[in-house]
Amino acid sequence: GRRGYPEAVYCEGKTPAQVAGIAAAVRDRGATALFTRAAAGHAAAVLGELPDARHDPDARLLAWPPEPPAPSGGRVVVVAAGTSDLPVAREALLTATYLGRECELVVDVGVAGLHRVLARLELLRSARAVVVAAGMDGALPSVVAGLVAAPVVAVPTSVGYGAAFGGLAPLLTMLNACAPGVAVVNIDNGYGAGHLAAQIAAPA
Amino acid sequence: GRRGYPEAVYCEGKTPAQVAGIAAAVRDRGATALFTRAAAGHAAAVLGELPDARHDPDARLLAWPPEPPAPSGGRVVVVAAGTSDLPVAREALLTATYLGRECELVVDVGVAGLHRVLARLELLRSARAVVVAAGMDGALPSVVAGLVAAPVVAVPTSVGYGAAFGGLAPLLTMLNACAPGVAVVNIDNGYGAGHLAAQIAAPA
Amino acid sequence: GRRGYPEAVYCEGKTPAQVAGIAAAVRDRGATALFTRAAAGHAAAVLGELPDARHDPDARLLAWPPEPPAPSGGRVVVVAAGTSDLPVAREALLTATYLGRECELVVDVGVAGLHRVLARLELLRSARAVVVAAGMDGALPSVVAGLVAAPVVAVPTSVGYGAAFGGLAPLLTMLNACAPGVAVVNIDNGYGAGHLAAQIAAPA
Amino acid sequence: GRRGYPEAVYCEGKTPAQVAGIAAAVRDRGATALFTRAAAGHAAAVLGELPDARHDPDARLLAWPPEPPAPSGGRVVVVAAGTSDLPVAREALLTATYLGRECELVVDVGVAGLHRVLARLELLRSARAVVVAAGMDGALPSVVAGLVAAPVVAVPTSVGYGAAFGGLAPLLTMLNACAPGVAVVNIDNGYGAGHLAAQIAAPA
Amino acid sequence: GRRGYPEAVYCEGKTPAQVAGIAAAVRDRGATALFTRAAAGHAAAVLGELPDARHDPDARLLAWPPEPPAPSGGRVVVVAAGTSDLPVAREALLTATYLGRECELVVDVGVAGLHRVLARLELLRSARAVVVAAGMDGALPSVVAGLVAAPVVAVPTSVGYGAAFGGLAPLLTMLNACAPGVAVVNIDNGYGAGHLAAQIAAPA
Amino acid sequence: GRRGYPEAVYCEGKTPAQVAGIAAAVRDRGATALFTRAAAGHAAAVLGELPDARHDPDARLLAWPPEPPAPSGGRVVVVAAGTSDLPVAREALLTATYLGRECELVVDVGVAGLHRVLARLELLRSARAVVVAAGMDGALPSVVAGLVAAPVVAVPTSVGYGAAFGGLAPLLTMLNACAPGVAVVNIDNGYGAGHLAAQIAAPA
Amino acid sequence: GRRGYPEAVYCEGKTPAQVAGIAAAVRDRGATALFTRAAAGHAAAVLGELPDARHDPDARLLAWPPEPPAPSGGRVVVVAAGTSDLPVAREALLTATYLGRECELVVDVGVAGLHRVLARLELLRSARAVVVAAGMDGALPSVVAGLVAAPVVAVPTSVGYGAAFGGLAPLLTMLNACAPGVAVVNIDNGYGAGHLAAQIAAPA
Amino acid sequence: GRRGYPEAVYCEGKTPAQVAGIAAAVRDRGATALFTRAAAGHAAAVLGELPDARHDPDARLLAWPPEPPAPSGGRVVVVAAGTSDLPVAREALLTATYLGRECELVVDVGVAGLHRVLARLELLRSARAVVVAAGMDGALPSVVAGLVAAPVVAVPTSVGYGAAFGGLAPLLTMLNACAPGVAVVNIDNGYGAGHLAAQIAAPA
Ligand SMILES: Nc1ncnc2c1ncn2[C@@H]1O[C@H](COP(=O)(O)O)[C@@H](O)[C@H]1O
Ligand SMILES: Nc1ncnc2c1ncn2[C@@H]1O[C@H](COP(=O)(O)O)[C@@H](O)[C@H]1O
Ligand SMILES: Nc1ncnc2c1ncn2[C@@H]1O[C@H](COP(=O)(O)O)[C@@H](O)[C@H]1O
Ligand SMILES: Nc1ncnc2c1ncn2[C@@H]1O[C@H](COP(=O)(O)O)[C@@H](O)[C@H]1O
Ligand SMILES: [Mg+2]
Ligand SMILES: [Mg+2]
Ligand SMILES: [Mg+2]
Ligand SMILES: [Mg+2]
Ligand SMILES: [Mg+2]
Ligand SMILES: [Mg+2]
Ligand SMILES: [Mg+2]
Ligand SMILES: [Mg+2]
Repeated sequence: GRRGYPEAVYCEGKTPAQVAGIAAAVRDRGATALFTRAAAGHAAAVLGELPDARHDPDARLLAWPPEPPAPSGGRVVVVAAGTSDLPVAREALLTATYLGRECELVVDVGVAGLHRVLARLELLRSARAVVVAAGMDGALPSVVAGLVAAPVVAVPTSVGYGAAFGGLAPLLTMLNACAPGVAVVNIDNGYGAGHLAAQIAAPA
Repeated sequence: GRRGYPEAVYCEGKTPAQVAGIAAAVRDRGATALFTRAAAGHAAAVLGELPDARHDPDARLLAWPPEPPAPSGGRVVVVAAGTSDLPVAREALLTATYLGRECELVVDVGVAGLHRVLARLELLRSARAVVVAAGMDGALPSVVAGLVAAPVVAVPTSVGYGAAFGGLAPLLTMLNACAPGVAVVNIDNGYGAGHLAAQIAAPA
Repeated sequence: GRRGYPEAVYCEGKTPAQVAGIAAAVRDRGATALFTRAAAGHAAAVLGELPDARHDPDARLLAWPPEPPAPSGGRVVVVAAGTSDLPVAREALLTATYLGRECELVVDVGVAGLHRVLARLELLRSARAVVVAAGMDGALPSVVAGLVAAPVVAVPTSVGYGAAFGGLAPLLTMLNACAPGVAVVNIDNGYGAGHLAAQIAAPA
Repeated sequence: GRRGYPEAVYCEGKTPAQVAGIAAAVRDRGATALFTRAAAGHAAAVLGELPDARHDPDARLLAWPPEPPAPSGGRVVVVAAGTSDLPVAREALLTATYLGRECELVVDVGVAGLHRVLARLELLRSARAVVVAAGMDGALPSVVAGLVAAPVVAVPTSVGYGAAFGGLAPLLTMLNACAPGVAVVNIDNGYGAGHLAAQIAAPA
Repeated sequence: GRRGYPEAVYCEGKTPAQVAGIAAAVRDRGATALFTRAAAGHAAAVLGELPDARHDPDARLLAWPPEPPAPSGGRVVVVAAGTSDLPVAREALLTATYLGRECELVVDVGVAGLHRVLARLELLRSARAVVVAAGMDGALPSVVAGLVAAPVVAVPTSVGYGAAFGGLAPLLTMLNACAPGVAVVNIDNGYGAGHLAAQIAAPA
Repeated sequence: GRRGYPEAVYCEGKTPAQVAGIAAAVRDRGATALFTRAAAGHAAAVLGELPDARHDPDARLLAWPPEPPAPSGGRVVVVAAGTSDLPVAREALLTATYLGRECELVVDVGVAGLHRVLARLELLRSARAVVVAAGMDGALPSVVAGLVAAPVVAVPTSVGYGAAFGGLAPLLTMLNACAPGVAVVNIDNGYGAGHLAAQIAAPA
Repeated sequence: GRRGYPEAVYCEGKTPAQVAGIAAAVRDRGATALFTRAAAGHAAAVLGELPDARHDPDARLLAWPPEPPAPSGGRVVVVAAGTSDLPVAREALLTATYLGRECELVVDVGVAGLHRVLARLELLRSARAVVVAAGMDGALPSVVAGLVAAPVVAVPTSVGYGAAFGGLAPLLTMLNACAPGVAVVNIDNGYGAGHLAAQIAAPA
Repeated sequence: GRRGYPEAVYCEGKTPAQVAGIAAAVRDRGATALFTRAAAGHAAAVLGELPDARHDPDARLLAWPPEPPAPSGGRVVVVAAGTSDLPVAREALLTATYLGRECELVVDVGVAGLHRVLARLELLRSARAVVVAAGMDGALPSVVAGLVAAPVVAVPTSVGYGAAFGGLAPLLTMLNACAPGVAVVNIDNGYGAGHLAAQIAAPA
């Protein structure tokens, strides 16, 4: 992979046969790889070539080899605003883990219940990079960025009622965060969020 | 006016001469009226016909007669997230005042500095209706709605960098507020926000 | 729940297993709860843990305990512009009912047949808050707000031809209502509309 | 002009010199013409070549020759929802007049005050085509179309608060009118509305 | 129905049971009705109550009673730019027929082959109203309006590649038609187009 | 310049001082250059350094050296749908000329008057590449592409009523052209259109 | 077909029966034809009438007669930024082939790995027209246009995360390409891209 | 300021008098501050209270005290794709400087001239964080992120032709960057970009 990080294979829009071919090549080259956005058929194709790959169906991710590298650099804390944001948050967490960071997950701390965010302040402030996955109003990264000194990687999710427009609403919220220090990535792009956080928290 | 409330004359898009004609008719009928979105020329036109009208240039509003009615019903608290939201907030406050409510103004309590919101909690909880004017990420109404039991009237402002798209970003944030109890009105529509809050806080 | 109101569990984007876990926790804590946007699988999951919960499949809502609280505060009138808006209207009505309001439903009074609206004027004017669910042009809340003194909670629905853009058209109509007193909530968000109306009509 | 109707010269985006050249050619050919969207400089250029042309500055329109043809066909009724819609309404009215229709103007009958529409019902029902110019929520054409059997030509105006998005909101409202019989034209396009109405009301 | 025209029942978003109930009421009142946007289930429901209703599956329309009224007024010519626009064109044609007009259908005369439009000029010019259904670039109504004196009802269809955005592209094209005399209706709204054309071509 | 073509300096967003500096460097290097989108101040700055540069104020373009190269390759025909599209059309024409093509200009042949297009068919068919600049409905490139075998470079202009949305409407029309052979460039980008046409018509 | 090129039949939105009818007519007329966007059912319908037609399921295209014409004119090089862009790239390649060009395919040379583009520079520079299919950021055409003198036909694909908005993001990127010489076609429109490239590379 | 960083005062939308009041308070508190988006009037107001503040008119920024802190942490490299992006790039550079980082500026290395980027590779790879400001196609961050291991902070600028839509096009490009490691901030938000880069490059 580029710069010592695992290669990423974006499975959506590829056939299982194409993914199997890529997995076989990964095995033959002895490369390290993450397969993202893997539906059931993609997962089966990967496991056919790399039977001991780690598969996390919630995150729709497979990693090979299954052991992540020993952690180095700073800590990454991943926050899911609500239960519905968990798949994206887990994708971020696993990505950062396989890029070599120590990671912690925090769930269900949305803006409507500030005390729950405030209760996790110490953990949040221990991070070298914080990832926040949120849908609907996408307001949580603004709040977290106001509480911590580290960069906040904000990943909007496509969760919400009609006027969320598939993640557009939280995306705009995050781009307009009134606290500085918010780095925005694409809608539902947990892989990108985890990758960016791992780069930020990389050893100097 | 309708239902005992003052008439509203929206000045934008009208000539000063048209506004003067309306002001003269208001005087002749002995009506009560608010002139909103009044530029300097509109204000001069109104004051030419109604010399003792109250004029608030920041809110771009004129009221006639200048004395608001004696307050009745519950309290309305108007919150401006930042200094830039003050014109819209003042328009809401004056509107609710001239519809007969007791009003309080709270400034500069944005999401990026939660402690400032929390410091005003008692006042916020004393309200029968809270108006929150905010631009940029528009996240403050979500936070306030999570802290108070009364309805929050959220008014997005057109303040912000490019991806705020003239108020579209905070508008979407507010429509997607993850706390229930948020009533959204049009961008920069302080008049509408104040009117709605006054109706909510009206005597039963 | 917050402020004595039932908790709300938004089921869309959660697995039935996750919803079952939440339902079990609700039962164990003796909490009161509403499960919204519940598909058949979610409903079965809730009923597995809370067998006597009330289930309204049209509104895709479950309530527990099944008995709503005794009504207090003012009346909430819920209007469905057309038959297609009924699911959203019912969700609003049930939500307000379980928050403790007395509610009435009015159906099929769209803008294209004004006499039908005018025929229900007395009932509309008896409300402390009116909810109007409408798709397509979303014009009905403007009309109703011109006829009643109480606040109108306007909820756009995703019903309509292509240029309704999934509810965007009625959403914009409602935000631009030329009569003051219109509080807008998210597309198809009957829960949010009912909650806001219940807060407005709460006992002082 | 095409089909016996006057030519139309859209002045916006043309220099006064270009417009003067076109006006001279009109004079030399003995043609009939309407100059639309004419700013002061355009008007002066036209009047320099066609000194007795009729100039209506509110509608930003010039007509030559100044006498409209004798009326034929059915009546066209033009409705302006508010004072701010008058320039567009007048442009429609003058266009239909110069295409040979008898026209009537109705003002200030917006949706928020239904009784004012209902008071003009007889006139509205006497029309072979009704033009309705409205900004903000653009709801009036839906209401009028529910009251009359003739086609309603709906022209959205760019009047309104931020979320009107320069006329997009009333445009969408009109395209989604829940009453059939609404023909939509471009934002602020009074010329197009008047032309279409004149064609509809043309003698068989 | 309103003004002697059949009632319209928009089936999308209604359950077959609801539609059956409406059909039964139509039968009992002896009303005339069109059921639009009827999927197979809706059609079966209607035919269960009104067995001799006319069903056109391509247009997704049912009419009752099956006999249209004797034609009166002027002719309506309906043009489908391409084969893919036929369902919408047929819906318009049947609607105008059941509102009492004589109708003709013209197919496959798109802008890319002008000679095919020009070959049908005589028929097009015999119409009191022309309906044009077109997707993709939606350019045909502009061309037709330049060729005929009668009003052109333009109905955009959702046919096309990605940047047609579900009919948005032809909708905008039609609203911006550089020839006057184009009346625009909603995307895929053949019913609305046929209704409007029938009103335009109604006997004076 | 790259590949023997002149350099292009986009003046908008640069200060006159910056443009003067670039012009001086062009002179010193003996380069050939086009200065596009040059307002009066930019033009003066260029002419201060390159006094004999050719300046076309309508096209807002300056060329240096003032003599274009001797023509080679095929002919480029540039079509302006209306007078308002002339500045963009001229920018395209001059660009192609300074890239070494023989060019012809055709004006005022919009879709609403097909006979005017058809009258220029021979010239259009003599081209190796046709540029069509059009605003409003942007329908002309579809028509022209149906008539000629050469590629059509379509450049949308920002001319039009509100729902043209600054050129978005003709842009979408052109991207959805129902005739193949249409190459779309950015709104008002006459330079880009002329450059592309010159490349297409370059000697083999 | 027009100008000696095969006819194109766009299958999406047509029934297999309609497509079969068109295929039979093609056979009877002895025409040459391409069937694009052909799903399995469409393909079967074509093959029922034209059993020896060439079918490429990846490109969803059928060609008849199966032999392309002998190549003439210049070379067309088709580039797929990633594996997911292959179906669109293949559609372009086959279209240009059946219009009579010699074609080459280049795969997996995205912007994130510049060395892979640079490694194919000689082939890219041998083309008379280059087609580039890319999704996500759509940046590759800008890069290629900076490296070659020939026109680049850019075709955005609908591949990508949420904020790609179905191809809108790469479409806008390509329209704004900072290198001149980029011709944009519709999203996923491989047929249009191949057709345009074949016209550009046609013998003089 | 928060976390030892200077306070930021966003001047746009504030009156000079309001800004002067804030500047006076900064002086009295002995705080450190940046005044961003300062027009001439704002700058005069700040300098009236803080005469020795540093003023950079190109970046529209004032800093007080004028001396930045001694550099710590890693290097920040700021890249301006074109001359027009310089104001935004300078705002980022000064912000990061006043937050305590060592900074380098790289200009005019756009995507259309890859060799210019490649010539600066060593400097780019020496950075702990790279800021890239780019308008039009916004493709440069994708290219840079493919070349360096450090995070790339991408700031879209509002520079470009019509279909750049005020920075929307490069914003979407950056969010869809096909290379991982791109952190996006708001359009023209040089302050936010510099702040984020400074946080990323802060001493561990
Ligand atoms: N804590 C905050 N400080 C400053 N601005 C904020 C804050 N929270 C939100 N904002 C928004 O930022 C914009 C500018 O605020 P200001 O600089 O205070 O006028 C306003 O629209 C506010 O709504
Ligand atoms: N008078 C009306 N008749 C039918 N529909 C209406 C009317 N007014 C508004 N609508 C809207 O049209 C849609 C379909 O209504 P229905 O056919 O009654 O389910 C709903 O979203 C209504 O909001
Ligand atoms: N009853 C109404 N009163 C005022 N304005 C209305 C009304 N109904 C609609 N509007 C719209 O509000 C805008 C301003 O109206 P006006 O203040 O009368 O110029 C216009 O675009 C009207 O279309
Ligand atoms: N170097 C790259 N690697 C992968 N994808 C790329 C690259 N550059 C651009 N892309 C885009 O990413 C999408 C997915 O690519 P792939 O995973 O190769 O199918 C395609 O739409 C490509 O256009
Ligand atoms: Mg922070
Ligand atoms: Mg609350
Ligand atoms: Mg009211
Ligand atoms: Mg009607
Ligand atoms: Mg015509
Ligand atoms: Mg052609
Ligand atoms: Mg090139
Ligand atoms: Mg990188």
